Amino acid sequence: MTTVAVVPGDGIGPEVVAEAVAAVDELGLGIDFDVLDGINARTYRERGAAMTDADFDRVRAADGVLVGAIGHPSVPDPAYGRGVLLRMRFELDLYANYRPVRLLHDRLSPLRDPTRRGIDCAIVRENTEGLYAGIGGALRPGTDAEVAVDTEVSTHSGVTRVLRFALSAATRSVCMVDKANAVESGGGLWQRCWDRERRTRPDLETRHLYVDVAAMRLVRDPDSFDVIVTNNSYGDILSDLAAEVGGGLGCAASANLNPETGAGLYEPVHGSAPDIAGTGLANPVGAVLSAALLLDRLGHAGPARSLRAAVRETVEAARCTPDLGGDLDTRAAGAAIRAACR
Amino acid sequence: MTTVAVVPGDGIGPEVVAEAVAAVDELGLGIDFDVLDGINARTYRERGAAMTDADFDRVRAADGVLVGAIGHPSVPDPAYGRGVLLRMRFELDLYANYRPVRLLHDRLSPLRDPTRRGIDCAIVRENTEGLYAGIGGALRPGTDAEVAVDTEVSTHSGVTRVLRFALSAATRSVCMVDKANAVESGGGLWQRCWDRERRTRPDLETRHLYVDVAAMRLVRDPDSFDVIVTNNSYGDILSDLAAEVGGGLGCAASANLNPETGAGLYEPVHGSAPDIAGTGLANPVGAVLSAALLLDRLGHAGPARSLRAAVRETVEAARCTPDLGGDLDTRAAGAAIRAACR
Ligand SMILES: CC(C)[C@H](C(=O)O)[C@@H](O)C(=O)O
Ligand SMILES: CC(C)[C@H](C(=O)O)[C@@H](O)C(=O)O
Repeated sequence: MTTVAVVPGDGIGPEVVAEAVAAVDELGLGIDFDVLDGINARTYRERGAAMTDADFDRVRAADGVLVGAIGHPSVPDPAYGRGVLLRMRFELDLYANYRPVRLLHDRLSPLRDPTRRGIDCAIVRENTEGLYAGIGGALRPGTDAEVAVDTEVSTHSGVTRVLRFALSAATRSVCMVDKANAVESGGGLWQRCWDRERRTRPDLETRHLYVDVAAMRLVRDPDSFDVIVTNNSYGDILSDLAAEVGGGLGCAASANLNPETGAGLYEPVHGSAPDIAGTGLANPVGAVLSAALLLDRLGHAGPARSLRAAVRETVEAARCTPDLGGDLDTRAAGAAIRAACR
Repeated sequence: MTTVAVVPGDGIGPEVVAEAVAAVDELGLGIDFDVLDGINARTYRERGAAMTDADFDRVRAADGVLVGAIGHPSVPDPAYGRGVLLRMRFELDLYANYRPVRLLHDRLSPLRDPTRRGIDCAIVRENTEGLYAGIGGALRPGTDAEVAVDTEVSTHSGVTRVLRFALSAATRSVCMVDKANAVESGGGLWQRCWDRERRTRPDLETRHLYVDVAAMRLVRDPDSFDVIVTNNSYGDILSDLAAEVGGGLGCAASANLNPETGAGLYEPVHGSAPDIAGTGLANPVGAVLSAALLLDRLGHAGPARSLRAAVRETVEAARCTPDLGGDLDTRAAGAAIRAACR
């Protein structure tokens, strides 16, 4: 029996995740859903904890967790989002953040001539170390002599495993991105690990870019990329940039994976957008495509392909929400995707 | 007597800087140039030093330094570039990297409908601390137990002065960019300094974005920005991204400033492009616009405006190099700019 934990979360999270769950149900794969209704801003305000240990155990017991969106203006404290998303990334050791980008339709790209550009790439972001290690502090905080320090930590094993994941995910090329010309210690480690790992895949083109150049290239020449692999901080920036170039956040999916244990957290990249919650304007595509990534990892590659094809078909036919050029509401857009799956 | 040090550097550096110097000469401002011919990859290979102390003294004595480009594939060691550019940034305490972006012509933008977008903004990058502090190291380097550490250091005075510079450079709005939701210590310091400094300019709209969102916004909505201020590492990425969105590196200018001492390093953002050195394909616009930034700082705001207008006129008329849609070589493009100044 396969069980998927579901965290609807905040704002539009419950609305989009409902469509993702319905789409998976439609495929008749016998997947069970364990819905965790207590992880959201309201319960955080009530009890001051982002996620109880009991909730965490349910997530851990499941074969994957599908998240709607975490975050709400009523809880400005970043500890809330970190207590959910970063906690799961770190405690489940979800070291590879996989962010595929494929333009669903020309009209969605902010770039000129998007067809010619043929955007179809993926960012692999190291997800458990780097600047997100949480190691730092401040001397004389709050005074005008304050010195604040944050430590970017990279380990040989951490860098090696994410490079291997990226090399395994590529079909054409992998571009490793760092800033070894300025941030020497981590850069040196990434360079050494890369020099070794890339030799294991002589069938792939392997390249290197500094992060500033990579950001430019994503805008000027996005079709020059297949897989990009980089550290946590640069991955945060480049993956959102690539999503925007590839049609916008509404359609962007993400998987946070530990390929060895099989654990995975799947979520649309967009936020909780509380301003449009309940209006029917929320676009379910990012959540549905995140569910497709989940199906891939659960061994259902065929159904995952059907889901992606259904999404593409509905977006091409403008049977989608207004942000994508259609006039359907969230539920009707979800229903259109399910209908296209049949 | 005003003296400007000139570092032609590598590749196309000498070619583009010659046009910048000629353009300034044409304006008849009585500026003297002290050309430092010994700072380039060839001399680095010969004597193993990026810049002699005597050279550095000449730079320090000048009222500003105009750099062509530093870097060459024959010297892969990043210590070379760092020994020139980062040394000047750090030793002259050039804490504000000012990177204006203004689209010279629609055809140069990688974005759709660039006119409607009206790109006209500037990135202010903190230039002397953060991840560029050079504080770090590795434990068990070169082994498979290596741990590498780089320290991002932010100081109250360092953050405050660059925020003040950004606020002074804006006419409409300033957007402060950090990642306080994940990188807490530095983020907290930036937030606190920002909360205080932004109140000094109630006439400006002041905003905040996380760096991942800012990168997306620069592509989706570049005309929503006036001045963006951020740390060294994010500034490195966002300033190149903005340059690309605003028409590409060939036209991008930069100033590295210490407004208190008046010291400044001015350079085009493009690299040394050794593959096209000597072919006449090098585009002098980035260097000429960098010279305009120098003139601003030397108190020649009027001539600086003329230079910018001349550049815009020649690019609109396609009297420019092929990368901008013209058919002139470097020298003819420089001559066209000078002619338009008259
Ligand atoms: C060469 C490199 C160290 C430098 C930097 O990152 O500062 C460059 O990219 C720049 O932006 O001037
Ligand atoms: C909420 C924030 C800490 C998070 C991150 O930077 O990892 C988010 O931007 C993301 O990319 O999932």
